[in-house]
Amino acid sequence: MTRSVDLNADMGESFGPWVMGDDARLLEIVTSANIACGFHAGDPDVMAATMRGASDRGVGIGAHPGFNDLHGFGRYRMSLPGESLGNLVRYQVAAAQGMARSIGADVRHVKLHGALANMASEDKAMALTCYSAALSVAPDIIVMVLAGTAQEAAARELRCAAAAEIFADRAYNDDATLVDRSQPGAVIHGASRAAARVVDMVRAGAIICESGKHIPTRIDTVCLHGDTPEAVGIAGATRAALEDAGISVRQFPGAPFDADS
Amino acid sequence: MTRSVDLNADMGESFGPWVMGDDARLLEIVTSANIACGFHAGDPDVMAATMRGASDRGVGIGAHPGFNDLHGFGRYRMSLPGESLGNLVRYQVAAAQGMARSIGADVRHVKLHGALANMASEDKAMALTCYSAALSVAPDIIVMVLAGTAQEAAARELRCAAAAEIFADRAYNDDATLVDRSQPGAVIHGASRAAARVVDMVRAGAIICESGKHIPTRIDTVCLHGDTPEAVGIAGATRAALEDAGISVRQFPGAPFDADS
Amino acid sequence: MTRSVDLNADMGESFGPWVMGDDARLLEIVTSANIACGFHAGDPDVMAATMRGASDRGVGIGAHPGFNDLHGFGRYRMSLPGESLGNLVRYQVAAAQGMARSIGADVRHVKLHGALANMASEDKAMALTCYSAALSVAPDIIVMVLAGTAQEAAARELRCAAAAEIFADRAYNDDATLVDRSQPGAVIHGASRAAARVVDMVRAGAIICESGKHIPTRIDTVCLHGDTPEAVGIAGATRAALEDAGISVRQFPGAPFDADS
Amino acid sequence: MTRSVDLNADMGESFGPWVMGDDARLLEIVTSANIACGFHAGDPDVMAATMRGASDRGVGIGAHPGFNDLHGFGRYRMSLPGESLGNLVRYQVAAAQGMARSIGADVRHVKLHGALANMASEDKAMALTCYSAALSVAPDIIVMVLAGTAQEAAARELRCAAAAEIFADRAYNDDATLVDRSQPGAVIHGASRAAARVVDMVRAGAIICESGKHIPTRIDTVCLHGDTPEAVGIAGATRAALEDAGISVRQFPGAPFDADS
Repeated sequence: MTRSVDLNADMGESFGPWVMGDDARLLEIVTSANIACGFHAGDPDVMAATMRGASDRGVGIGAHPGFNDLHGFGRYRMSLPGESLGNLVRYQVAAAQGMARSIGADVRHVKLHGALANMASEDKAMALTCYSAALSVAPDIIVMVLAGTAQEAAARELRCAAAAEIFADRAYNDDATLVDRSQPGAVIHGASRAAARVVDMVRAGAIICESGKHIPTRIDTVCLHGDTPEAVGIAGATRAALEDAGISVRQFPGAPFDADS
Repeated sequence: MTRSVDLNADMGESFGPWVMGDDARLLEIVTSANIACGFHAGDPDVMAATMRGASDRGVGIGAHPGFNDLHGFGRYRMSLPGESLGNLVRYQVAAAQGMARSIGADVRHVKLHGALANMASEDKAMALTCYSAALSVAPDIIVMVLAGTAQEAAARELRCAAAAEIFADRAYNDDATLVDRSQPGAVIHGASRAAARVVDMVRAGAIICESGKHIPTRIDTVCLHGDTPEAVGIAGATRAALEDAGISVRQFPGAPFDADS
Repeated sequence: MTRSVDLNADMGESFGPWVMGDDARLLEIVTSANIACGFHAGDPDVMAATMRGASDRGVGIGAHPGFNDLHGFGRYRMSLPGESLGNLVRYQVAAAQGMARSIGADVRHVKLHGALANMASEDKAMALTCYSAALSVAPDIIVMVLAGTAQEAAARELRCAAAAEIFADRAYNDDATLVDRSQPGAVIHGASRAAARVVDMVRAGAIICESGKHIPTRIDTVCLHGDTPEAVGIAGATRAALEDAGISVRQFPGAPFDADS
Repeated sequence: MTRSVDLNADMGESFGPWVMGDDARLLEIVTSANIACGFHAGDPDVMAATMRGASDRGVGIGAHPGFNDLHGFGRYRMSLPGESLGNLVRYQVAAAQGMARSIGADVRHVKLHGALANMASEDKAMALTCYSAALSVAPDIIVMVLAGTAQEAAARELRCAAAAEIFADRAYNDDATLVDRSQPGAVIHGASRAAARVVDMVRAGAIICESGKHIPTRIDTVCLHGDTPEAVGIAGATRAALEDAGISVRQFPGAPFDADS
């Protein structure tokens, strides 16, 4: 039975003079930060500052690689060959790891971004390519996967350190995929509603779909957003609700999935 | 008295579909490769392939960071603030180091590229910023400096592992700076002439200027070029001439400069 | 019956210090040049030089827009929303048109590049978006389409000035699509064989498929390549063979497709 | 005696998912918009939307070219050769002009951005290169210059249509240059103070320096900023103060400087 859970959020997505999100406030709420690596967002200055902020607060540093498409913020699907895909991830994880070490910290986990994440959640071969690339740079890195998707299947096959993630503010279909954003109800609004839902899922050890269906899953971390004031509100409410429910909020241990389960 | 010397060349400067230089032939000649890190040239695929090529042949892998200006190939001077400059170098060295480790190799040295190198050879504070950034990522990295410039002064001050470099195919002024490319005789043509000159300088333990003046200096490595067939010819001739003269060609040891000398 | 045909090739695909193709030789062979617009390849310097070269030789200047993916050379499919797609083409055609006017020339045609072209050849709505965007900038521009594809269907629907294109060195399937490059025989090797094939297709007024099947089509222009010495050889041989066969090589008139045919 | 003046501001400096400035509010205040062209900021989508907004409100559309340095927002000085500089401006003005025409509008003026503007205000040859490039694309374009600088000298020499600009919120040295931002008092705070100062300068037909010195100059337009709430406040207050003082706010006519004056 789950007694603790990690909270994660994307960060370090500013670029040059352009600011995105409220990283300072999020760093007070989350226990893991997925830090952009300079391809879909972020730059060396932003990475350095974000990593320092996370390190100072004891927040786990994660590499958050995405497609090499700054303009599209890594949200457009791109048809890269596998070898290039691997090198794309390898380079970004490498840059993140070295940047972290230069301030005496360490990259603890890796989480794919945007279209790269979406494609890897549907395509185990692609997820294997990305995770193997990350592990070739950092053999002990914890792979953060979308619970119940091809990402999880890849991490199971690799038997690597892993963390299974659910979303605080997105509705689920009965097959554990996310309800498309074009559909009504796809995004959960209201901090108290989102927070209560997360508590229910963590307690149940299951994704609770829109239909009410329960899909049992390991839940190691909950994905929060910080790009709007409402999102920051949901993040804070979720943390408070979890603690009120007696679920401690702390970094995931990174245990491999049981290959037999 | 110098009995051995290293030969280095810039490599991995292709980008996407565009090829630059003849890396395969250079890798048969040099003992150290300065590999572009994806900012002024190079990309994750090119880096991976170039590092594998170097590693397979026992050629030392170096990070070769430059300004973030792909179009200008890092050749335009840019007025970055010091903190951004440090992060620029930190990121590129980090990416190179992780890429190397992912294939079981290691980044042995760092050499600045283009306008970044030119500016750092005139400005010790800037060189200190760049080298400190590299050392923060990789404390044992060997800093390759242009002999007799502010780059060398910075490496002396840092007392870090270092390698002093001369050029095979460029003429020197009496103050150890390079003759401007706009001047006649700035670039040495003719493989045999360039090769003989390198042998003379290595034997003399001095830069030999156009005027005939000798500037005593430690010579750990000789910079070769590979962007034209003539340049590859000079590279090969230089190696052959050194070996004929009883000077062995092997990787520099990376000894710190004697701070008192 | 066709008595004349245009020859076109992609050009201006160098970038910064990187050279691609042999534009100088191609400009002696073709009558229309598809000039990269700075997104998948090319830059302001390369565009200016290429346009001057084309203008000096009376070669028709075309805008050759592609995806905003320099590293992938515009060859990876990207899932842009329609409005962004339109603006992507609008911007590149605009830049090309103004660059041409600054030297007293004019952009005569537009041809889509790489993955953008492939996607538009399968998806009429996408082709309509791209061509409408180009026409919004330059109402008289001639749209160069792959004969027999959704690109042609879009140009028919728009009733705009158009030019139908076949390939000199690619084999066709029975549905007028190109044989996939992974298949044997997809690319025609041998200058004389490719040249003879083009003469046969122009004479027949039809695409001649690998199976021998004839697909009747208007043929206004033949696409040549110039990225390898063999490609330049095929280009020259094709021009010679056409002229020997009494088919004059000159710029396409740009007539709209007959909407009723 | 000046009875009317134009108000201008930089706009369209968002990029992809990143928003900068409050363009909607500025468009209600200014009469001329300097729209980024996709190199230091802006992208085809942002340009299209910003131009539509300006056109709908009768605000004059200007091309605002900068260095090809998105990360540095065009604020770092770069040492480009003259020919590349000309092509850099040519391309951006061309793109802007075509984007404007595609919505039935026109680019009325050009204003250089950031470090490019700073360098051209000190170097007449550089200003001539940039303005000649813009005029080669759009012969009737109005060149907006910093009053009293080498930019103005270049426009005088070219005898082209021109508009002389002063700053609402920046203090001046006695030689008409701006007080360096590192100095106290360099930036004028307080909407009423800035607004009153602009009214004084427009009435006096002179730059009023910090020392009290008056430098007589043609004042065609006043540069406002919109990147902070205070800046938008200053913009609105300046417009109101001008109108209260009986100075009408409308687009500059674009008269050439009197070459004899």
